Amino acid sequence: MNDITFQAIGTIYTPHASLENMPIQPSGAAQTKGYILLKEEFTEGLKDIEGFSHLTLIYHLNKVEEHQLSVVPFMDDKAHGIFATRSPKRPNPIGLSTVKLTKVEGNKLFIEEVDMLNETPLLDIKPFFRQSDNRLQAVSGWLDDKHQNAVSETKSDERFI
Amino acid sequence: MNDITFQAIGTIYTPHASLENMPIQPSGAAQTKGYILLKEEFTEGLKDIEGFSHLTLIYHLNKVEEHQLSVVPFMDDKAHGIFATRSPKRPNPIGLSTVKLTKVEGNKLFIEEVDMLNETPLLDIKPFFRQSDNRLQAVSGWLDDKHQNAVSETKSDERFI
Repeated sequence: MNDITFQAIGTIYTPHASLENMPIQPSGAAQTKGYILLKEEFTEGLKDIEGFSHLTLIYHLNKVEEHQLSVVPFMDDKAHGIFATRSPKRPNPIGLSTVKLTKVEGNKLFIEEVDMLNETPLLDIKPFFRQSDNRLQAVSGWLDDKHQNAVSETKSDERFI
Repeated sequence: MNDITFQAIGTIYTPHASLENMPIQPSGAAQTKGYILLKEEFTEGLKDIEGFSHLTLIYHLNKVEEHQLSVVPFMDDKAHGIFATRSPKRPNPIGLSTVKLTKVEGNKLFIEEVDMLNETPLLDIKPFFRQSDNRLQAVSGWLDDKHQNAVSETKSDERFI
């Protein structure tokens, strides 16, 4: 097997010390504030990032210990394949969240709508590009059957610890 | 340094044998077709994925040999910090693209709007969830100054090889 090896470029700090009661998606995290401390060696890479209102973060779900190919996600009571869900117990525990950027101070980025655990290792930051990243006509399978409010109101629990 | 190690869950096959003339984003890739071969051991994880019109793929930019913190991206003639661009020469060479899913046959997923190189190692598949993943009001910094047509018409060149 060919290993693909990365190193954290920084750390995401959030108020979520445990999975219990954590919002399951940024849209459920509303004004929840956090920040990123980028490793100082990468600060130059932030030039012009303050012009973006939203950033897509790719991070390591470092508390996930094993994967499941079939999961009952928070938003349903039926099992779905892991790749048809956003559940964390993935073969490669990689998290993906688009958050709001409010301020940049040196290597510190102030963000809102955070839905990841405190001290999460950050792998990459992509600027959200409105013209390319939205998919207004997307059909979202079993998730379409759930009302948008369900995302905002559903909290995490201990099942994925 | 703490290494974070993943393994490919499969491979993305596309018509793009080299970076030359490759579309720089899925919106520029129009009907360009490709497919994913997931490793057979993960096929169970695809259950119900066919209900989604779009998938967000996270993959290894395995042809990138070194990173640059400041880059002149395809869409501009000025340098920006790497994290304010989608350029591939990132500290962790991780690619992110939302593609269209047209058919699933066992461990083979037929996709369109592909903008990655042929034989790209796949790290994760997330279902695109229209209600959570769109950011209609996003402001996209220097990219907003460029017309949408610029994305569709701009092709890659050799500068990131």
